[in-house]
Amino acid sequence: MTQAQTGRPPKLAIDAIHEALATLPGWTLRDDGAAIVKTFRFKDFNEAFGFMTRVALLADRIDHHPEWFNVYNRVEVTLNTHDVGGLSRLDIEMATFMEKAAN
Amino acid sequence: MTQAQTGRPPKLAIDAIHEALATLPGWTLRDDGAAIVKTFRFKDFNEAFGFMTRVALLADRIDHHPEWFNVYNRVEVTLNTHDVGGLSRLDIEMATFMEKAAN
Repeated sequence: MTQAQTGRPPKLAIDAIHEALATLPGWTLRDDGAAIVKTFRFKDFNEAFGFMTRVALLADRIDHHPEWFNVYNRVEVTLNTHDVGGLSRLDIEMATFMEKAAN
Repeated sequence: MTQAQTGRPPKLAIDAIHEALATLPGWTLRDDGAAIVKTFRFKDFNEAFGFMTRVALLADRIDHHPEWFNVYNRVEVTLNTHDVGGLSRLDIEMATFMEKAAN
């Protein structure tokens, strides 16, 4: 099936990933090249979870979900698209939104 | 300073921990004895994050915070009280609330 039929976004090529990362400060490609990661730090838990809540609303809406670990003011995020075994535009969209939500 | 002065709850003795765990299905003591852990599974991300949000409101109110990892419908929780280097009644209170919030 084509993307239009499945709704599944295609896997990004490495050039497109590096192009996107250039606009996403603090984000890095995981060693296996299949995910991008960033650790966010906030003033306290309230701000960290406020951030997570804004991201969760996006995640629920676009049906694309982060892997994330939180303790107190720290949120460690991993983004990838399981269906394509790597990164898709959904990960870039989510990372871009996280940058806005964190600032 | 005494607990009344610091507001810091005392570290629970191992007997008290095992007594509490007997009332908390699925919770186990971490190998080092300094934390309790449980993995919760929900129907989907919406339910998982709904659970996290209820817990976050409690955490913010009592100023006691979980360590937790979430991906889609799974929430892996670790509870301990850094200040006492182990478990306190705050961890039991939070775990008990999580059981209510998850069901």
